[in-house]
Amino acid sequence: MNDRLLRVCRRQPVDRAPVWMMRQAGRYLPEYREIRQKLSFLELCKNTDLAAEVSLQPYRILDVDAVIFFSDILIPVEAMGVPVSLTDKGPEIANPIRTQSAIDSLRIPDPSVEVPFVGAIIKKLRQELRNAVPLIGFAGAPWTLASYLVEGGGSKNFAEIKSLAYREPRLVHALLDKLASTVGSYLLFQIESGAQVIQLFDTWAGELNRSDYEEFALPYTRKIFEAIGSRVPRILYVNGCASILDSMVSSGAEVLSIDWRISMAEARRRSGERVALQGNLDPCVLLGPKERILAKTEEILEQAGPTGHILNLGHGILPQTPVENARCFVEIAKNYRQA
Amino acid sequence: MNDRLLRVCRRQPVDRAPVWMMRQAGRYLPEYREIRQKLSFLELCKNTDLAAEVSLQPYRILDVDAVIFFSDILIPVEAMGVPVSLTDKGPEIANPIRTQSAIDSLRIPDPSVEVPFVGAIIKKLRQELRNAVPLIGFAGAPWTLASYLVEGGGSKNFAEIKSLAYREPRLVHALLDKLASTVGSYLLFQIESGAQVIQLFDTWAGELNRSDYEEFALPYTRKIFEAIGSRVPRILYVNGCASILDSMVSSGAEVLSIDWRISMAEARRRSGERVALQGNLDPCVLLGPKERILAKTEEILEQAGPTGHILNLGHGILPQTPVENARCFVEIAKNYRQA
Repeated sequence: MNDRLLRVCRRQPVDRAPVWMMRQAGRYLPEYREIRQKLSFLELCKNTDLAAEVSLQPYRILDVDAVIFFSDILIPVEAMGVPVSLTDKGPEIANPIRTQSAIDSLRIPDPSVEVPFVGAIIKKLRQELRNAVPLIGFAGAPWTLASYLVEGGGSKNFAEIKSLAYREPRLVHALLDKLASTVGSYLLFQIESGAQVIQLFDTWAGELNRSDYEEFALPYTRKIFEAIGSRVPRILYVNGCASILDSMVSSGAEVLSIDWRISMAEARRRSGERVALQGNLDPCVLLGPKERILAKTEEILEQAGPTGHILNLGHGILPQTPVENARCFVEIAKNYRQA
Repeated sequence: MNDRLLRVCRRQPVDRAPVWMMRQAGRYLPEYREIRQKLSFLELCKNTDLAAEVSLQPYRILDVDAVIFFSDILIPVEAMGVPVSLTDKGPEIANPIRTQSAIDSLRIPDPSVEVPFVGAIIKKLRQELRNAVPLIGFAGAPWTLASYLVEGGGSKNFAEIKSLAYREPRLVHALLDKLASTVGSYLLFQIESGAQVIQLFDTWAGELNRSDYEEFALPYTRKIFEAIGSRVPRILYVNGCASILDSMVSSGAEVLSIDWRISMAEARRRSGERVALQGNLDPCVLLGPKERILAKTEEILEQAGPTGHILNLGHGILPQTPVENARCFVEIAKNYRQA
């Protein structure tokens, strides 16, 4: 087994940094677009065979060091009883959750009953992979999921969720707590089904300053990571993490996944030896040219040093990325030798 | 004259922090909305009497310590020969600038000829204010203006401008240099007309990591600040500045205006005694409740300490902000006494 990624999570030595890409099963691949023509995004998430197929595409086409199962962070939210539409412009929730009664009406789903397809996709992937590379499970973190629920979709300034949190903190804490319970059992279900690593996406927590992060996001991340315990390594991703990195270190994660705005060197300096790091090429760099991809990726690998680093992007790969550039990125990790 | 703001820029002692708000002349004020009913945003920018009137509204209604003249950062871009529409969803540029020939066709406008109304508004404001409080001039910084020009409007990931910068750096540098010349003479024109402080908005430069910031944004900010010299104090604003604050310190600005994601204490620690700081309440806090406005604003005032701080928001005031909350924010600055 290519267990480089698992070894990095455990802070064991590796011959080179493992590499994968957030949203690596996605629209930049013609093979993915071909399958997506046949069914909607949500239908694809729930189709065991095709979801497994698109999950494997980046492994087969680019030879990445890990597979992440194809899904969306709002799948468990839908299972809580909230109708969700996934459009090309992002998720839409027609009836935002902004009152105690709306929160009370949310179910904490039993994943084996409500989202059995997630277990089936993961099991199928483990069978197909035959331990060739590790399989990553994932979920959205409570603050990020709550943002979608309260805003009713994506947001520019997160005014609805923030002002609700400031006006009625107990109400928002009740929502976050319910989401933490849901996500905790959802990730445990993924682990029971075969996920060997999990990544928690707190994509929008970087919009909070550090004291708000510690009030509204970090406690729920901790609760989820405590529920998982040491079953599998835990990765925490936040987009725009520069101001809160020091708090993220105490989340319980073995790995912090950082965006491109902070340099790998500074993130290393600030997080010390306590956690491994994942990241952090700006996805826009993958639009080309190759010389810049090489220079910027090698800069990251050099700053990260020989251990405790998973090479990745700082955010999801862009749909307009040329496949050959994604392949180039993967190859750089394989050819790089630490000075 | 209430010269607290000017004294802070010069690092002189003050009895309390001066306070104003980015976008303080804006939609949250009923008096502003009443005037805006009569004419479009761009028409308002070009109407000397009404632009002066809305500029003065926050001073008269909230008693802020500085007036900023009402305008938009794309006014000089329009004067370069680029048709601009300002919609409620943000600026739109129908023909984005992405080629050498498009850049070559941009004029470096003579502000006294192309945007005389800007001078007229500033002159009128100085007359009306009779030195009661300082008048702030402003412009967009080259990277931020180039983002709008290349993207054709606002952007989520800035993929167009970044990939152009990576593929054809010389082309983007040519555009940035032309914008720097335009903005430099535009700000000098504002100063000649009576602006007593200037603020450069590099709103989107926080999307760059530090090495890209130093390659594509900082040199042009420096060029503009060098052109202005010590005529008036210079304020530099970047939204999402946590990763690049150390570079911003060497921009030549007397004051760095920071967003809410970084704590005032950390910004102070990192910028040391070299610059004054402006900011940095999360605009969402002004949505209420008052107890939180008080606690969070006093936290900023306490962390900033007795000198070298202009109280402001971390980004523009939101249109849905209750006026009484904006007034509350201003009052807190006036009543606060350093421990």
